[in-house]
Amino acid sequence: MRTSPLFTDLYQLTMLCAYIDNGRKERAAFELFVRKLPQNRNYLVYAGLQDVVDFVENLQFSSEDIDYLHSLKLFPDWFLDFLKEFRFTGDIYSMKEGTLFFPHEPVLRVEAPIYEAQLLETAIMNQIHVSSLIATKAARVFSVSRGKLLADFSLRRTHGYDAGMKTARSCYIAGFSATSNVLAGKLLGIPVVGTVAHSFIMSFEKEEEAFRAYLKTFPDNSILLVDTYDTLEGIKKAIEVAKELKAKGFNLKGIRLDSGDIVELSKVARELLDSAGFKEAKIIVSGGLDEYKIDEILRAGAPVDAFGVGTKIGTSADSPYIDFVYKLVELDGKPVMKTSTGKKMYPGRKQVFRKENCDILALNDEKLEGTPLLEPVIRDGRVVRGLPTLNEIREYFVEEFSKFPEELKGIHTSFNYPVLISERLENLYKELREKLLGGKRCQSP
Amino acid sequence: MRTSPLFTDLYQLTMLCAYIDNGRKERAAFELFVRKLPQNRNYLVYAGLQDVVDFVENLQFSSEDIDYLHSLKLFPDWFLDFLKEFRFTGDIYSMKEGTLFFPHEPVLRVEAPIYEAQLLETAIMNQIHVSSLIATKAARVFSVSRGKLLADFSLRRTHGYDAGMKTARSCYIAGFSATSNVLAGKLLGIPVVGTVAHSFIMSFEKEEEAFRAYLKTFPDNSILLVDTYDTLEGIKKAIEVAKELKAKGFNLKGIRLDSGDIVELSKVARELLDSAGFKEAKIIVSGGLDEYKIDEILRAGAPVDAFGVGTKIGTSADSPYIDFVYKLVELDGKPVMKTSTGKKMYPGRKQVFRKENCDILALNDEKLEGTPLLEPVIRDGRVVRGLPTLNEIREYFVEEFSKFPEELKGIHTSFNYPVLISERLENLYKELREKLLGGKRCQSP
Repeated sequence: MRTSPLFTDLYQLTMLCAYIDNGRKERAAFELFVRKLPQNRNYLVYAGLQDVVDFVENLQFSSEDIDYLHSLKLFPDWFLDFLKEFRFTGDIYSMKEGTLFFPHEPVLRVEAPIYEAQLLETAIMNQIHVSSLIATKAARVFSVSRGKLLADFSLRRTHGYDAGMKTARSCYIAGFSATSNVLAGKLLGIPVVGTVAHSFIMSFEKEEEAFRAYLKTFPDNSILLVDTYDTLEGIKKAIEVAKELKAKGFNLKGIRLDSGDIVELSKVARELLDSAGFKEAKIIVSGGLDEYKIDEILRAGAPVDAFGVGTKIGTSADSPYIDFVYKLVELDGKPVMKTSTGKKMYPGRKQVFRKENCDILALNDEKLEGTPLLEPVIRDGRVVRGLPTLNEIREYFVEEFSKFPEELKGIHTSFNYPVLISERLENLYKELREKLLGGKRCQSP
Repeated sequence: MRTSPLFTDLYQLTMLCAYIDNGRKERAAFELFVRKLPQNRNYLVYAGLQDVVDFVENLQFSSEDIDYLHSLKLFPDWFLDFLKEFRFTGDIYSMKEGTLFFPHEPVLRVEAPIYEAQLLETAIMNQIHVSSLIATKAARVFSVSRGKLLADFSLRRTHGYDAGMKTARSCYIAGFSATSNVLAGKLLGIPVVGTVAHSFIMSFEKEEEAFRAYLKTFPDNSILLVDTYDTLEGIKKAIEVAKELKAKGFNLKGIRLDSGDIVELSKVARELLDSAGFKEAKIIVSGGLDEYKIDEILRAGAPVDAFGVGTKIGTSADSPYIDFVYKLVELDGKPVMKTSTGKKMYPGRKQVFRKENCDILALNDEKLEGTPLLEPVIRDGRVVRGLPTLNEIREYFVEEFSKFPEELKGIHTSFNYPVLISERLENLYKELREKLLGGKRCQSP
């Protein structure tokens, strides 16, 4: 994402100004994590790092930005001069995109002079939030898909342009095969799919006329939408037209069902197609789908080959936000925490070690068994090394996801994946909490 | 929104190609509407037209777009040549932004050669959807706010960049006074607000030290966040520091509460502030708010002056999508409809007449009492006249909203606003339905 650094909350700028005005330039570490899982979620899937990196690398106030801030009559002139030269000079550590994560595990850490780290908060949260939200929902769909193909059809209902692009990307990361979003095809290289809509069929005098017209133009992309009027009739007409197509040397690729009793209709469609000799033709289903419906359809033995999934995935409808927080965990080399009214957090710079059946949350300098999940991404304001490609991220997700237990992936049941706290971290937490409850500042000595 | 015309579903392009390939260039009318209200909603608020106009006016395939489409090996060359010259040449009618609307009322109609009208579908739906979704949620918040100030604090949790900008805009339309989103301030002229975060307070040895540091820099923007540690103590320290501020000739603007029992805390805060002589200091509340909580807080008599509303508004959390549809209603001068499995729609180009206590849905050429809500916006591909400014839209919304009955605005109860169907429209509907059920094409003679 390349946008203005003004894509932030005003208080990030007032804090930045107050920090500098008060000579506060200590190095700070902020970590991004969730305290608890959103409803209906046993795990979360991390995504959106690429956008954060793009944002941080290009973070620069334009002269129009400065002029606007000047017009607010809020900031002193020295501060606006300072912003003109502002660049991010710190370090960022992050999990890989496509990584599953759990409460209290930092997915990303910013280490920089406190005012720099603070300024990134809003953009980082906004971008990681939407991508992880959709990747998580898409992973749930993937988890019930039993190898059937999945396509993102959500563009018309995502929350705007950026969400449309990120939904295509996050779905692809989480095991989808394609999107209907052409711009995502162009800009992200995701395979694109699509046929026709009901309005196309309706615009012809007869259904079969519409089928013929479409196949005249796209004999090679022959997926016919059969539910505009009577679905059974539609299937029969599609078969009729498919025979004509075959005579011209092309084969029917499939039919799409967008409404009705999918289990029943797909079974009948499969029989009719098979007995007419179209065993290769696929049955594609769309219309109000999510992981619950897809699971139900496949459990009932419906012979569906692919699903086009829309609105409910593109808005993560049953759980439309994740309570990410971005918290100060270390200041000037000393671990810090805040524990207001039941809002627990762990102090200090941390690392997550992934073992076979559990994670261990530890302090950053601990050396424990398992794979450390946070790795350097930006150092001194510059990208450490190239980030993985989208296909690499997708492969990584699919591989990692396969290692987690089936109970975790259940869509109807809740399952607490074990995240153990290292002894040193637990002790530090207790020590700081005692200080805090003693009314003192929440910092280690 | 200025984006590529590739911000669309692939099937819009395959349909466009098939229409032209089959010589189909008849003029068509498509209308955008909802069949039923989303859960927890008695009305919807229309927004997003400005983005649609920007999109349509700038709709043009770049050579990179064409190259990408070529690379798909899906489209014939003549079609790609055609796209190079493609412009929208049709007409668009629309309600004003800020208008309340109800099921079956078209909010927007596109009249153009069928392939042009079809191509706009995805972008129009995407853009109107997100803006109307948030405007509707924000209107619900506004409806319980009893004149208290409302600010959009949702940027970190909106679904990406575009949603962040549109949330600020839609909230402002629906009666909010400000946003924390600085870029929305710059680009849309919305007043921006903000103070400090907990991390700022935490980064100082003592809470009062943090207050002093902030006020040193912003004596004129003196709103203090008082709930980082013990809220009561925080309020007392804020008052202590405010006295020092007064000695320097500045007055405490207010305090912000972001957690805890808001009703209780705000009452105590008000007493303490008043008795210390800070009667002008405002109490600002934030943290997990929505219309339900704000209503509860104000019903309990909490002396809150302003609310900062975040996540739940920026994601329309209790109802995160609207089932907009964009349907062919007329083809070559003849009204059309589709009525598959319980999905009712009304045929023909329509107009909505707003009367004092009801709306009348009628055919476009009917002359009925009441204010017609759809008006020309684009003619022959060009904007008919300047659209209203954001402030004009906001005033229009506030004025119109005040005219609707209180029952409609109840946040806990459902209320069906009467939308009457004109006799001619009802007759046309029945006539076409009979034809349709007779198995024939869904068109008038």
